[in-house]
Parts: sequence; structure tokens; C-alpha cells
Amino acid sequence: MFRVIKNILIGEPLPNKKLSKEKIPVWKALAIFSSDALSSVAYGPEQIIVILTYAGLTLYGFALPISLAILILLAIVSISYSQVVRANPGGGGSYSVAKNNLNETMALIAAASLFIDYTLTVAVSISSGTDAITSAFPFLKPYHLLIDLFVLFGVLMLINLRGIRESSTVFVFPTYGFVAGIIILIITGVILALTGHQPIIPPESLRFSFDAGALFVILRAFASGCSSMTGVEAISNGVTMFRPPEVENARKTTFLMALILGFMFGGISFLTVHYHLLPQSGQTMLSQLASMIFGRGWMYYYIQIATMLILYLAANTSFNGLPPLLALLAKDNYMPRYLAARGERLAYSGGIVLLSVVSALFIYAFRGNTEHLIALYALGVFISFTISQSGMVIHWKREKGTNWHIRAVVNAIGAVTTAIIVVIIGITKFIYGAWLVVLFIPLLIIVYRKIYRHYSDIREQLRLPKEHYGKAKDIPLGKNYVIMPISGVNRMVEKTLAYARMISSDITVLYISINKEDIEEIRKKWEQWNTGIELKIIYSPFRTILRPLANYIAHMRNHIGPHDFITVLIPEFEPKKLWHRLLHNQTGLYLRTYFHLKYDVVISVVPFKLKK
Amino acid sequence: MFRVIKNILIGEPLPNKKLSKEKIPVWKALAIFSSDALSSVAYGPEQIIVILTYAGLTLYGFALPISLAILILLAIVSISYSQVVRANPGGGGSYSVAKNNLNETMALIAAASLFIDYTLTVAVSISSGTDAITSAFPFLKPYHLLIDLFVLFGVLMLINLRGIRESSTVFVFPTYGFVAGIIILIITGVILALTGHQPIIPPESLRFSFDAGALFVILRAFASGCSSMTGVEAISNGVTMFRPPEVENARKTTFLMALILGFMFGGISFLTVHYHLLPQSGQTMLSQLASMIFGRGWMYYYIQIATMLILYLAANTSFNGLPPLLALLAKDNYMPRYLAARGERLAYSGGIVLLSVVSALFIYAFRGNTEHLIALYALGVFISFTISQSGMVIHWKREKGTNWHIRAVVNAIGAVTTAIIVVIIGITKFIYGAWLVVLFIPLLIIVYRKIYRHYSDIREQLRLPKEHYGKAKDIPLGKNYVIMPISGVNRMVEKTLAYARMISSDITVLYISINKEDIEEIRKKWEQWNTGIELKIIYSPFRTILRPLANYIAHMRNHIGPHDFITVLIPEFEPKKLWHRLLHNQTGLYLRTYFHLKYDVVISVVPFKLKK
Repeated sequence: MFRVIKNILIGEPLPNKKLSKEKIPVWKALAIFSSDALSSVAYGPEQIIVILTYAGLTLYGFALPISLAILILLAIVSISYSQVVRANPGGGGSYSVAKNNLNETMALIAAASLFIDYTLTVAVSISSGTDAITSAFPFLKPYHLLIDLFVLFGVLMLINLRGIRESSTVFVFPTYGFVAGIIILIITGVILALTGHQPIIPPESLRFSFDAGALFVILRAFASGCSSMTGVEAISNGVTMFRPPEVENARKTTFLMALILGFMFGGISFLTVHYHLLPQSGQTMLSQLASMIFGRGWMYYYIQIATMLILYLAANTSFNGLPPLLALLAKDNYMPRYLAARGERLAYSGGIVLLSVVSALFIYAFRGNTEHLIALYALGVFISFTISQSGMVIHWKREKGTNWHIRAVVNAIGAVTTAIIVVIIGITKFIYGAWLVVLFIPLLIIVYRKIYRHYSDIREQLRLPKEHYGKAKDIPLGKNYVIMPISGVNRMVEKTLAYARMISSDITVLYISINKEDIEEIRKKWEQWNTGIELKIIYSPFRTILRPLANYIAHMRNHIGPHDFITVLIPEFEPKKLWHRLLHNQTGLYLRTYFHLKYDVVISVVPFKLKK
Repeated sequence: MFRVIKNILIGEPLPNKKLSKEKIPVWKALAIFSSDALSSVAYGPEQIIVILTYAGLTLYGFALPISLAILILLAIVSISYSQVVRANPGGGGSYSVAKNNLNETMALIAAASLFIDYTLTVAVSISSGTDAITSAFPFLKPYHLLIDLFVLFGVLMLINLRGIRESSTVFVFPTYGFVAGIIILIITGVILALTGHQPIIPPESLRFSFDAGALFVILRAFASGCSSMTGVEAISNGVTMFRPPEVENARKTTFLMALILGFMFGGISFLTVHYHLLPQSGQTMLSQLASMIFGRGWMYYYIQIATMLILYLAANTSFNGLPPLLALLAKDNYMPRYLAARGERLAYSGGIVLLSVVSALFIYAFRGNTEHLIALYALGVFISFTISQSGMVIHWKREKGTNWHIRAVVNAIGAVTTAIIVVIIGITKFIYGAWLVVLFIPLLIIVYRKIYRHYSDIREQLRLPKEHYGKAKDIPLGKNYVIMPISGVNRMVEKTLAYARMISSDITVLYISINKEDIEEIRKKWEQWNTGIELKIIYSPFRTILRPLANYIAHMRNHIGPHDFITVLIPEFEPKKLWHRLLHNQTGLYLRTYFHLKYDVVISVVPFKLKK
């Protein structure tokens, strides 16, 4: 039953050999790896205006200079990352770079930042994707949170548990569809502006009034705009998936992506400012822009739907990114080991579920409010940028290949720039939510370390000493003492007794009575049965079975040798229906879940099949 | 830790011999057994007016005739119950009476009605008690539901799990305090009315306008007023607790209670109608009456607090009534057997928790709205009255003692009268909530029957055949085949292997590989260890451990004899901290919870203690 539902939703299990090792061309790689980065133009430019116009309109004119600064930053980061591609670090991104070139702490900071970053990418992208569609269809607005959660669990988690191929051509359409739509939007917008079909408002209308107090707001707007830069690192994590020459192709893709991102970001920012658009509750600025340029015709709806699709796709990239990172951490003993195991469909199921749940918590906690989610965003991204770039500096210095000086300098510029951004974001967005990230990162590192410590403790305690090898046959054999608690004389006890006789010559049958009246009856029945084994009866005035049993075991332990074992045999029957379990007390469950560990006894469950 | 908190809240465990067998005098019995019945004057008279005035005021004048009808009904029911007392049926009330005198179905209908009745008593009494206090202190109104749940779980459930003595003198004060307050209220009210200190409105102002359409409303008001009669049966369930002569004293108490209840009910109804009080949202009519007669002075607050206390106490009587009934049903195999077991403090803990949870569901579902809860009420009570009275008729007919004819006639009148009330309540309140009760009763009976069936199936299948007695020594002994799945070569496996050697001469060590790369390493280690036992390696391309293990067992089963056993040994270490469990996969848990039953193998868990 459960199996059938699972097979419909997730599909039949797949064997190991089905793991694909496909190589993909540049045009496909661009679409697959850059949806996260490109989709962020749907909210990045808007965030700048949102922050600038919180307190009034006097700072509106700074939107364009801020956008320009972000474009410069984009250039720096992209060039830096084209260097990371060259070093070809494989999966794991910043974590691997830091682990190989810096130290454990840096690697864990990167891992923690990435964890937060990936989960926030899911939350922000889904929330923005739903914004795009509720902007176009306002009657859907009350169901925002519901749509978010359905997309998260009903679509993304499910298709990823099914193990969709990252390289599937299906993913190409939303990205190119979106890029095409936005480029047409920008070109049309600029033409309309130049040909005077749309009102032109002279730039003088934007009053620039700069003072020291404004600086904070401007830097905060810049910090929020930096959220557009998330996802730039995606290509460097997937170098091995490119067609040869891998490095060359991956570098080419990085630059292409930066170019498209830059054009779209610049264009949207320009048009937004040109038309003096202001944030509206219930409608995104991209929606305002599209309806201003195209009217609410089919082109408008095309852009909104394409925006929704690429944003949901961007959320999907985290499902490609985080689970393998968690698997890597699990292999390094920083995360529970089962996160390293591939599920039935070869996907890292544990990581996929974990990512879905944590993202859902973010979405739920912020009730699908994109703006508040973005306040948390970007900090983690830039921390991992900084660590990764710093790691690359060490890498080039160690390798000392051709032009290593230039390469190190490029990455050093990247590292310093992104470090400055970290400080700016950390300060300007601290009270708006970044404190949460500042809190989570050390917490996650403590968790990583605690887990690591636990696994190494276990390993140490389980390790077979060198001198035991070759001497397995010398392990001294003791005696097996069997304790068999019974609740009556019946066929289940009969079967258990047969088993007890097979595995031991020293059997104690125990009847723990919670009710003095029963004692005589059971004693008589036992004698009639004539087992030849004495029935030990213990009266338990406190009506508990476990305490007298534990006391008896403690008493027995004083009389046995160091290599002897005590085995407690529990007969158990299988209820035919699930609800039948409610009708029987769960002493057996307790015995085999905690008791054996607490009292150091072997617990053997002897099953008895019922027919109805 | 858990133990300590539990001891503070619930107290130390108590041994069986602490079960008290106290006998109580009439003055105390009256207070203890009649809180449910007497407290219902706090909401009964109000309900009549509420229903009558729903559609307008034309029917207001029927309030007094309806009250009179209820007083007559009270007389009939009390006399009938004084007969039940004479038959001295002990605990279980209607259920026992029906079981002994009628048939199983009637007994189960009674049991189901009582179940609903007891849970509703808790819900209605707590909700009304809180009404009394929020009438006096309106700022508490927003916390109505919260107060209800706190009283239910934080006070009633807890003190009953502690096992408070039913006969504690503490319970005497609220009852007598309330009775005294209401009698003073009535006398003062009547004096004020007669001496003209309060406005007298001539009876002519109450326009009587009777027509066929009004009949339904009048009968519905009567049906709601019948809720005042709940709890009349309480004394008959506690006859054994009276001081001798038990029957004489219990009969005396029944009549005393009926007298007091009649006086209070009549008095409150008279004053309410005399002052033409109308239902107010947010204030009970008793509160209106008290504030009209005494003003909002200390006497007013005394009455409100006494009302609250007696109502909470009335809820408590269900905690004395339902758990023993459930225990009785459990002993008769109609309820899960553990409901018959006394908890650590000798109370029927399971029943207490069940009652609390179901009542909380009622309170929550109706959001503490007393009026809606009362719509469900009374039906169950009168069904169980009818069954109990009918049972008594059969009882007298069978026993044929002195005056048995008269006694049978008295109970027959009671049975017929209450049966008529059942029909009236069932029809007039059907769409207002009684349908829920009409639905629940057959559902509960189905549940009782299913449970009974399950237990008798089990008993039958477990019963040791007669011919096996005396022949326990002839049980044929087979051979024990041990399968030992390992995940590596370590100290845990070493300990498990020592155990395996002790209990079997046929050991299969199994390594299920989910990853071809590990195979060579484990094979080498195993050989180095030199156990003399072959290591069987199975590659599992679907990365599951359970399926290959199950297949191996199925394969083995074809080659063993009918008396042989297969034992699967699982080594298990104890994580030192609870969260460590999250770090290990739960294959062991699955194996010992489901696997053994599904594949009919003995599962033995060999514990390995960790030091850190």
C-alpha cells in the first residue's frame, strides 16, 4: 500500500549503474547553471528602490549609481570565478576550496554559509516566483503561502526525489524564454523612451541630496541589490559536467552569463528609474515595467509566467547544489552519515528532504514575504565568495603555474572586494535580519564539530585492537543465561520455550504478578504443563513489570562470569491490523528499544504469527 | 530527569495495599455525589429561557410551566433511582444493570451513552464554571478557552492522576457553599419581591400565545432544561461507599439531593421569570440575578466563585465515574486492556488521560461555548436512564422480593417517562447537535465490538491445546541457524560473534555491500582476523540492506526443518546522548520492530556499551 503510493510519486528504485555521467555543451550549460543568477534580476533592482524609498523620495536618484556599482562588482566577481574554474575544483565549491587551501574552520564557515545560502535561495526564489504570478493574477494573492509550499513540496521536492537529470533539456526553456522576454522588454522600453512614445521625465527631476545620514541608506540599498549576484558561483561547481575542453567552455559560459546578467540588470534598473517607478504592494516592479511598456497584453503575461518559471527553476538549482554538499560533509563526518547515501532513485534523498523542510520553515516564518527574506540573503553568499577567493590566492601561490602572480592578484582583488561587501551587508542589514545569519553560522559550525567529534569517538571505541587480528578463534566463550518472562501459559510461550531450550541450558522462567489473585492459577497451570523448569513468581506491588525484571537481572549479574551473557526472551505476536497495536501494551517495544542498552542484556524477540 | 518531573507532578508510586476502602456518612456523601446534579442549576434554567427567547418574546411565559414539568420529571427519576439504590448494583451504573438484566447490546448502548455523557459533563461543567467567573470579571473573557484547558489538564487531570481520594473532605465545601449561597439568594429575592423593594411586574405582562408552531420551541426548551437532571444517577453508583445501613442511607441521600435540587431549580426559575430577565451575551443569568438582588457586592462575588467551584467539582465527578467504567469495559474486553490497569498512584491513569483528551476536543471544537455544548447534552443521560430503569423492571421481575410488583411499576414509570424524554430530545435537538450523539453511539458500539472480537481471536489462537498439558518436555527441539549481518570488522562484531558461537553451531556472517569499492577491503580485514567462518558478501545494487537480507532468509528457509529457528543477530551500541540517535540510521530499529514478524525470524539485539 505505502509501497504503491511511493512508487507512483517517486518511481521504482534504480540500481547504481544508472548513475549518469553525461557531458553537456555550452548552450545547455548556460541555461542550466545560470538560472539562479539570471532570475535574480526579477527582485534585485527592485530591492534597491525599495530600500531607497523607505523614508521618502529624496534618495531615489541614487538608484542608478548603485546599479552601476553592482555592475562593477559583478565584473570583478565573474573574473575571479573564471579563475576558480581554471583550478577546476569539482563539486563542493567554497567548502572544497577552503578545505584544500585554507583550514578546517574556514571550510566549515563556507559550509555553513552555503547551507544558509542554498536554503534562502529556495525560499527567496519560490517566494518571488509566486510574487510574479500573483502580480499578474491578483485573485491568487490570498493563496501565496499555499502556492509557495505546494511548489516546494509538491513539485521541487518530489521531482528531485524522483531524481530528475540536472541536465534535462526541459530546464533550457524557462531560462532562454526569460532572457528573450527581458531583452525584448528592455529594447522596446528604450526605443519607446527615445522615440517619445512614453513620457520622458528630465533627469533633473531626481533631486540628489547627499549627506552623511543618507550614506547608511544608500549602502543598505547597495547591500540589498547585491542579492542579484547570488548564483554566479554555480558554474564553477559544475566544471566536470562540461564537454571538453571543460575549463575553456566553463570560462566561456561564466563570461556569457555575466554579460547577460549585466545587460538585464542594467537595462531594468535604467528603465525603472527612467519611468520613476515606485514600489507597490501586491505588484512587483518588473510587472509594473512590463505593463507600462506592453500594456496588459499577451507579452505582459508571457514575461510574468517566464519570470515565475525561471525563479522556480532557480530554486531547483539549490536542490542540485546542497544535497551533494551535504553528502560531502557527511563523508567528512560533519553531518549525519546517511546524508551521504543515495536514495532509491540515486538522489541524495536525505539532503533533499532536509533542504525542503528548512526552506519551508523560512518561507513560513516570513509568510512568503520576499522583502524580509532578502534581508537575510546575500550575506552568506558573499562570505562564501570571500572564502573561496582567498582559498584561490593560496592555491595559486602553492601551485606556482604560468602567470600565477597575475592569477593570485585577480583572486586577491576578488577576495578583498567581496570581504568589503560582507562588512557592508553585515553592518547595514544587521538589525533587519542579518543578525540571524550571524547567529546561525557559528551555531552550524558547532553542530558540524559536535557531529565530527561524535563519529570519531565512536570509531575509536569500536576499533578492533591490532593484536586481536588473526586471533578471532581465541575469543573466550562464556555461558548463556536465559530469562523468559511470561504472562500466562499459552502457545506463544510454548514456542519461546522451545527456542530457549535450544540456545541455553540455564533457563529462568519468570512470572511477574501485579495482582496477588492470579498467582495460584498460573502456578497450577505451569505445574500441569510439566516443563521440568521451575516457575519463579515475583509479586510487584507497584504494578510495574520492568522494575522487578531489572532487579532480577542485576541480582543475576553478580553470579555470572565476565564472558557470560544474559538473554531476555520476549515472545511477541503480530497484530494483523495496525489499530490492533493500540490494544496491547507496549512493554515489548520498550524492552527492545531501551532496556537492553540500559541493563546490558541481549534481547531476543521470538515472533508468533497470528492468522486473524 | 523525566522521573523527577513526573514525581513532582504526580507523586511517588503507591503499592496495591494503599487502596482505600473508606465508608462515608450521609452529610459527606450528599456533597460528594451531588455536585454534578446540583451545579446544573447554574445553566439549566438559563437554557430554557435561551431557547424560548431565540425567535422573540412571545413564548417567554412558558418558562414557568416548563420548569414545573422538569420538577415533576425530577421527582419521577429520583424515585426510580431510589429503587436502583435498593438493588445495590455497585459500580458501572446503567452498564452493569443492563449487562445483568437485559442483553449485551443494551449494555453497550448504555456504555456508549455514559462515555459521551461523562465527557460532555466535563466539557459543559468546565465551560460553565469559566462562564461564572468571566461574568464576574469580564477582562478574563478573551482567555476563556485557555482557562478551560488549564482547569482540565493542569488541575483536574493532574490531581486525578495523583489519585486524590474521592471522599476527601475538601470536596464538601464547594457544594455546601454553593447550596447555602443559592438558598440565601432565593430567599432574599422572594422577600424583596414580596415586600415590594424590587419592581413587581404583573404576570399579565407575559403574553401566552400558544399555537402548533410554538410546540416545537417549547419542547426544545424543555429538552434543554433537562440538562439539569444529569448527575441524579451518581449516588446509585456509589452505594458501596456509604456507611451501613448502606441502602437506607443512600436512599435518604437521593431524596435529600432531589429536594435541594428541586428547591434551587424552582426558585431560580421563579425569580428569573419574575424579574423578566433575558439572556445576555457575556453574562450568565445567575450572575444577572445575583447582581440584581445583591448588587455587585461581596455576596455577588461569593455566589459567582461558589458557582465556579461547584461546576469544576462537577467536572471532577466524571473523573471518578468514567475511568472505573472504562476499566470495567476493559475487563470485559470491550476496551483496550491497559485501561483496566491501575497506574503508579493506583488511579486508572489511562482512562483519566482519555477522558481529559476527549473532553478537551469537545471544549476546543465548541470553543468553550456552553450553549452549543448543551445542545449535545442530556440525550446520552436520558438514554442511560431509560436503559437502567428498564433493566430494573426485569431485575424485580426476576428476583420477586417483597412488594416486587410495586417496585417494578415504579421503575416502569421511570423507564417510560425517560424514554419519552429521549424521543423529545432526539427530535427537538437533532439538527442542533444531537445528531452527533446519535452518530457517536453506534460508532462507539462498533468499536467496542471490534475490540472484543480482536481479544477473543487472540485468546483462541494462543490457547494451549488440552493435549499439550503434561507434555511440555516432549516439544521437539530443532536447530538454531544464526545470520549475522556486519557493517565492518570491529569490537562490536567481536562481541556479537562470541555470542553467536554460544547459541549456534551454524553461523552465516553476511556483508551487504551497497558500494562495490568496499568489498575488497572488508574481505581482506575479515581474512586477517581469521575467524574460521566464511564471510558471505552480497552486492546490493539498489543500496538497500533489508531486501538482500530478506531474500537470503527466504532462501535459507527452504533448507531447514519445521522445528528449526533462524536467528538474526544485530549488534547495537548505545548513543550516550539522545541527539546522537539522529546521527545513525535506524535499520536496527526497523529490523526489531517489523522485520521479525514479517519474515518469522528471531531478532536478537546484542548491546555494546560506549563510554563516551
